[in-house]
Amino acid sequence: MKFTVKQIATLLGGEVAGSETLAITGLAKIEEGKPGDISFLSNLKYEPFLYTTKASAVIVDQSFQPKQPVSSTLIFVENSYSAFAQLLEEYYRQLSFARIGVEQPSYVGEGSQFGEQIYRGAFSYIGKNCQIGQNVKIYPHAYVGNNVRIGDNSIIHPGARVLDNCIIGKNCVVHPNAVIGSEGFGFAPQPDGSYKTIPQLGNVILEDCVNVGSGTTIDCATMGSTIIRQGVKLDNLIQIGHNVDIGRNTVIAAQTGVAGSTKLGENCVIAGQVGFAGHLTIANGTKVGAQSGVGKNVEEEGISLNGSHAFLMRDNMRSQAIFRKLPALEQRVTKLEKKTEK
Amino acid sequence: MKFTVKQIATLLGGEVAGSETLAITGLAKIEEGKPGDISFLSNLKYEPFLYTTKASAVIVDQSFQPKQPVSSTLIFVENSYSAFAQLLEEYYRQLSFARIGVEQPSYVGEGSQFGEQIYRGAFSYIGKNCQIGQNVKIYPHAYVGNNVRIGDNSIIHPGARVLDNCIIGKNCVVHPNAVIGSEGFGFAPQPDGSYKTIPQLGNVILEDCVNVGSGTTIDCATMGSTIIRQGVKLDNLIQIGHNVDIGRNTVIAAQTGVAGSTKLGENCVIAGQVGFAGHLTIANGTKVGAQSGVGKNVEEEGISLNGSHAFLMRDNMRSQAIFRKLPALEQRVTKLEKKTEK
Amino acid sequence: MKFTVKQIATLLGGEVAGSETLAITGLAKIEEGKPGDISFLSNLKYEPFLYTTKASAVIVDQSFQPKQPVSSTLIFVENSYSAFAQLLEEYYRQLSFARIGVEQPSYVGEGSQFGEQIYRGAFSYIGKNCQIGQNVKIYPHAYVGNNVRIGDNSIIHPGARVLDNCIIGKNCVVHPNAVIGSEGFGFAPQPDGSYKTIPQLGNVILEDCVNVGSGTTIDCATMGSTIIRQGVKLDNLIQIGHNVDIGRNTVIAAQTGVAGSTKLGENCVIAGQVGFAGHLTIANGTKVGAQSGVGKNVEEEGISLNGSHAFLMRDNMRSQAIFRKLPALEQRVTKLEKKTEK
Repeated sequence: MKFTVKQIATLLGGEVAGSETLAITGLAKIEEGKPGDISFLSNLKYEPFLYTTKASAVIVDQSFQPKQPVSSTLIFVENSYSAFAQLLEEYYRQLSFARIGVEQPSYVGEGSQFGEQIYRGAFSYIGKNCQIGQNVKIYPHAYVGNNVRIGDNSIIHPGARVLDNCIIGKNCVVHPNAVIGSEGFGFAPQPDGSYKTIPQLGNVILEDCVNVGSGTTIDCATMGSTIIRQGVKLDNLIQIGHNVDIGRNTVIAAQTGVAGSTKLGENCVIAGQVGFAGHLTIANGTKVGAQSGVGKNVEEEGISLNGSHAFLMRDNMRSQAIFRKLPALEQRVTKLEKKTEK
Repeated sequence: MKFTVKQIATLLGGEVAGSETLAITGLAKIEEGKPGDISFLSNLKYEPFLYTTKASAVIVDQSFQPKQPVSSTLIFVENSYSAFAQLLEEYYRQLSFARIGVEQPSYVGEGSQFGEQIYRGAFSYIGKNCQIGQNVKIYPHAYVGNNVRIGDNSIIHPGARVLDNCIIGKNCVVHPNAVIGSEGFGFAPQPDGSYKTIPQLGNVILEDCVNVGSGTTIDCATMGSTIIRQGVKLDNLIQIGHNVDIGRNTVIAAQTGVAGSTKLGENCVIAGQVGFAGHLTIANGTKVGAQSGVGKNVEEEGISLNGSHAFLMRDNMRSQAIFRKLPALEQRVTKLEKKTEK
Repeated sequence: MKFTVKQIATLLGGEVAGSETLAITGLAKIEEGKPGDISFLSNLKYEPFLYTTKASAVIVDQSFQPKQPVSSTLIFVENSYSAFAQLLEEYYRQLSFARIGVEQPSYVGEGSQFGEQIYRGAFSYIGKNCQIGQNVKIYPHAYVGNNVRIGDNSIIHPGARVLDNCIIGKNCVVHPNAVIGSEGFGFAPQPDGSYKTIPQLGNVILEDCVNVGSGTTIDCATMGSTIIRQGVKLDNLIQIGHNVDIGRNTVIAAQTGVAGSTKLGENCVIAGQVGFAGHLTIANGTKVGAQSGVGKNVEEEGISLNGSHAFLMRDNMRSQAIFRKLPALEQRVTKLEKKTEK
């Protein structure tokens, strides 16, 4: 990022007190600001840092009046907190889409087509007959198989793997070393105790605005599609089995696993290290606590589950509370037994 | 895949009613069939779809008699379900081994030798003195270290890492981003609280017909070998510690971890997110439920374990059932106490 | 490794009985020794193997006197066990740093600088303005983003990803397919149920002597740094969230997850598959048992926790013991109730 104070003030609709020509190259907390940084002051608990910060510029509320001399340039805006957030997003957007062009060596198979403004990093691999949209960024070491479609503004980070026939929507982000479309885990037991591979011929569909975390694995369907619907956010090291269907705007934290053919509803919030058994249907708006195991369908919308054989959160908390007192409870029973023996 | 209806009928030993020259390029469920697809009808619940499907051909039982006009070509076989399964497998086999030849750039170190019909993808890396069998497929971005042996018909998917001195048998599949032979986690505590690395000099041996899922990590032995025996199937994101030994035809679901030096028996079935402590011996045919933690040897063959401090499944289920009623149980005890106080 | 017996004897300060010119190319247990190997005899339980081993040389204690003829060359040292350990370390050190030079094709961006004795493998990628120290080994398929610093003697294994602006200290090892500095999982819920990405602009700092296991993911901070302090050892498939801070010499076993902004103390020992909630502070020297879930701050130093809603290990063990007997306990209560009803 490289802006002048004036450019930033214009972007935010603010007024400048101080030098308008200063170059801004980074963002920082007010207590950590260095020359070239821009920061902000919203919570007045941090006001003392305003008088000592080395940041070149600080965004403050219109209503704010300094009580001591300030060496930084000030930008007055209506709401300093949301103005800074806006700046952060603009900076982040520019950073995310900064890379344009093709680095060599990189590999493209026959019949693949690309939109404008794309980036293909060195050692990236794109198979045959792919359709890659505008402004897509394919980082070094990313692998895209045959017949893959990737929508506009999506980012495939270093070492991510998108296997044959998968479809990725617009505005998706696939983080480093994620695997999309690897073969589902299906084996038929044979009479001699060995297993025979069940062919896995389907694909994975990520709808628009899906986030797939680093090292997360999403298996392709046996036939048909494993579907991750619009706006779903998956954290790192998550396992999604074959033929799973995850509803819109559901969020799943790291290291959770969803076994094959399970259907999660929309707007669910799933914590980390949760496990879902296969072939379940989970209602919209379900919340599941960390490390829970869900082994049954959830039919009622909007409930909260917890515990390794997950049942209702409130009930589980009460059982947990007594679990901690079990030794005392047993002693009480023993005492009663002695008493009644007499 | 590209076959005529006639070729498929010959493969399946079936008789054709309709056009024998139609080109078949895909397989689909009868309700999702498109022109160019072949489908099947076995369960008559799906018969209505036969009269509306767009599939070019449908495999049906010899005994089947359509009740309405059918626009698809029909192939009559003894058992339509198993004929379709046979076709699926043939299609899958052709797909898996379709890639032949060398894409550039790719890297091969001195002294490495290759069988026939192999595929080496662009950006694949093969170190020194490797022996790679016939019909082996090494995908783009796969890494094979020095002195590695890979048996016939094995597939190393994109981004998989096979480190120095490892041995991979015949008919193995190593899925994307799996890591085989990384250093075991061994550190000796020092008097100052720091840790010194214990050299890890062994390797990993995968015997024949082993499946290693995406993102799964298998550490090399400290000395000697970590051994994954014939027919073992490992799902995604599994951790196998150094010097582990997994018996023939054992199946392990995703996100399970096996700590160092543990020996799992043959024909075990381990569910997802299970943890095994180190230095255990687990008998043949043991079944372990999802999210269980196994901290003790299992000596009796064929038993089922469950629970975070896993014990016998049946006992655990009964304890779990009462766990849910703990609050009520405590109240009963309190009531009894009051009663006996009188 | 290729040494003569004489060179090894000199290194260990030992005396040779037998041929000094024999070439030694490997290390092995005495019962598995082959020609070219060196082995050792410390525990006299293994003495019978000395008279049958095929190892070219065996290290023995000064005080040892063979009772039968020995075909291997013997090296007499003060303490055979620690001499062998010393040899193992020397061998391992040589192996780890054996690769020197640049393989092609590999990629280096503008402005990046390298120390001496480095290795850059084929298909490795190094971005712009990186500073890479002496004796650093960057394996094939490793990705290093822009503005990264890597200290002397650090090893970046195949397929590891180090993203923009991260800092890696001296003597670190980043194992295959680990991801350092991917975006933290931060999303702000919107009124329509969708989520907006919160920009993640910070980095990851690994101090000196840090080990990052295969497939482990460490997210960058939202702003500022995720910090892994000196001597920390992380096993495989661990998830470290944004803004986490892990204290010196803490060791974490495989598949554990630490949620965002949690601060672990120094010298902690964390077992496998543990989960830490976010925004916690965990005291120095805390020990946590496998599969535990830690949801509260730990203020007292040096305590041991266990259980899915982790509390004190001792208390938890007692509760677990009774949990197994819950069905019997309930029957006892029911019996009491009947008795007192009378």
